[in-house]
Amino acid sequence: MNSLEGRLQRCAINTATLGHREPLGTTLDRIARAGFGGVAPWRHEVEAVGATAAGRQLRALGLTVTGYCRSAYFAAPDEAERKANMNANIQALNDATEIGAQCFVLVVGGARGVKNGLAGARAQVQDGIGELYIEARKLGMPLAIEPLHPMYATDRSVVNTIRQALALCESIAPDDNPMLGLAIDVYHCWWDPDLVSSIAQAGQAGRILGYHVCDWLPDTRHMLMDRGMMGDGVVDLQGFRGLMEQAGYTGMVEVEIFSAEQWWKLPQDKVLSVCAERLQSVC
Amino acid sequence: MNSLEGRLQRCAINTATLGHREPLGTTLDRIARAGFGGVAPWRHEVEAVGATAAGRQLRALGLTVTGYCRSAYFAAPDEAERKANMNANIQALNDATEIGAQCFVLVVGGARGVKNGLAGARAQVQDGIGELYIEARKLGMPLAIEPLHPMYATDRSVVNTIRQALALCESIAPDDNPMLGLAIDVYHCWWDPDLVSSIAQAGQAGRILGYHVCDWLPDTRHMLMDRGMMGDGVVDLQGFRGLMEQAGYTGMVEVEIFSAEQWWKLPQDKVLSVCAERLQSVC
Repeated sequence: MNSLEGRLQRCAINTATLGHREPLGTTLDRIARAGFGGVAPWRHEVEAVGATAAGRQLRALGLTVTGYCRSAYFAAPDEAERKANMNANIQALNDATEIGAQCFVLVVGGARGVKNGLAGARAQVQDGIGELYIEARKLGMPLAIEPLHPMYATDRSVVNTIRQALALCESIAPDDNPMLGLAIDVYHCWWDPDLVSSIAQAGQAGRILGYHVCDWLPDTRHMLMDRGMMGDGVVDLQGFRGLMEQAGYTGMVEVEIFSAEQWWKLPQDKVLSVCAERLQSVC
Repeated sequence: MNSLEGRLQRCAINTATLGHREPLGTTLDRIARAGFGGVAPWRHEVEAVGATAAGRQLRALGLTVTGYCRSAYFAAPDEAERKANMNANIQALNDATEIGAQCFVLVVGGARGVKNGLAGARAQVQDGIGELYIEARKLGMPLAIEPLHPMYATDRSVVNTIRQALALCESIAPDDNPMLGLAIDVYHCWWDPDLVSSIAQAGQAGRILGYHVCDWLPDTRHMLMDRGMMGDGVVDLQGFRGLMEQAGYTGMVEVEIFSAEQWWKLPQDKVLSVCAERLQSVC
């Protein structure tokens, strides 16, 4: 396996990594100037400037859009909210197309407040992705289900393993692998006893649409906002990328770090330079 | 499935639920007085009064000891610590026998600081349980591996699913199901997409040695110390017990709640009365 040294053009920055502290235009300029080849922006950022303007700037900077973050939840406590979320997701597909995203990232929603709890939420997610998939096909915009760590099953996502996400893909779009697949994030999946076989299976199915890195810190202080910089935690990042590449993944390596107390307090250019250094040394 | 109404004799209290705020003797008296049939005490409590005295009181009160909590870690950063932990575990087996515990509960240790990280820790765990199992057989003391939630893979346990724990059992003690099995805790396992088949498989293998309940709270504020009282969270507790009983489990239902900011601040007898009420209404 080749190291990422000298290959920042194969690396992307998820804008959450910089803490969403400034307008998208400034963020995109910084990321391109730092030498990265790609970016994953968030809906609220793109909507603030408009997808047309965002798309124009992205093309001018030559940045690949590795993914558009992220869906509203498919699992919802009531029909009105479910419907509003679905409409937001359909609108987001148009914006994803406008900015040239490689995929629209799906975070599916948790069990909280949903009728029949976990089982009910999982059923709603299956139905909801099926519904959005029909719209996505019309636009040719691939959907990437992101399995989230099991600790988010209540508040954020009832899809919690690669294998579970793969089963959803096979069930909803059995013969359409480029259009419904997975975004695989080390933070969510590194602990999985079935990691090796799951990634291989996802690759074999042609369903891997994205790869996100950060690190898991010992003594994590917050369940959402305390992800670590690559190299500061316990994840075997080179081993993980090896599995991804053996599975045929040739896409970008995207950094996504939520870190309210550490990295979001540092100057953005500093964060980008540490990302660049760590991508080339420990990923 | 029968409700637990009127069957507190089939229910047990893990002493952690009361916050370890008083000597074991007082705790045991409270639990028996409240009408529970069983208790799961912790090593530091039993060691403080001595296993002989603890055993004598437990027998006098007629309390079943559903499990003895818990092993020192099998995964360790260095050989000295690994060996010290193994010796502590062997001593604990003697104490478990002395107090008449139904099993010794194994929390296996996390990946943090261990050579080769997650993979290295999992190998150490396999070897360590194998070593302790030889001692446990001599004493006839069953070992119950407790899979912990994946969010503890760094700091507490690299065994994170029922299926993974079962594979360890089959590998270490293939023909000895009553002596090496699992303690299944809803907090750690409720999210698992393979829950139904995993519990069935564990039951078929004759490996279910314990069942722990609490609840998962929305907006969990602390990764260790914010478990919920049964009924206050999202877990389908009656559904879960149904799976356990379909799998042939006839043992006790043990309440284990770590709750530094809520339940551990209330009077112990109040906590016990709420446990009794919830066991009989929502479990």
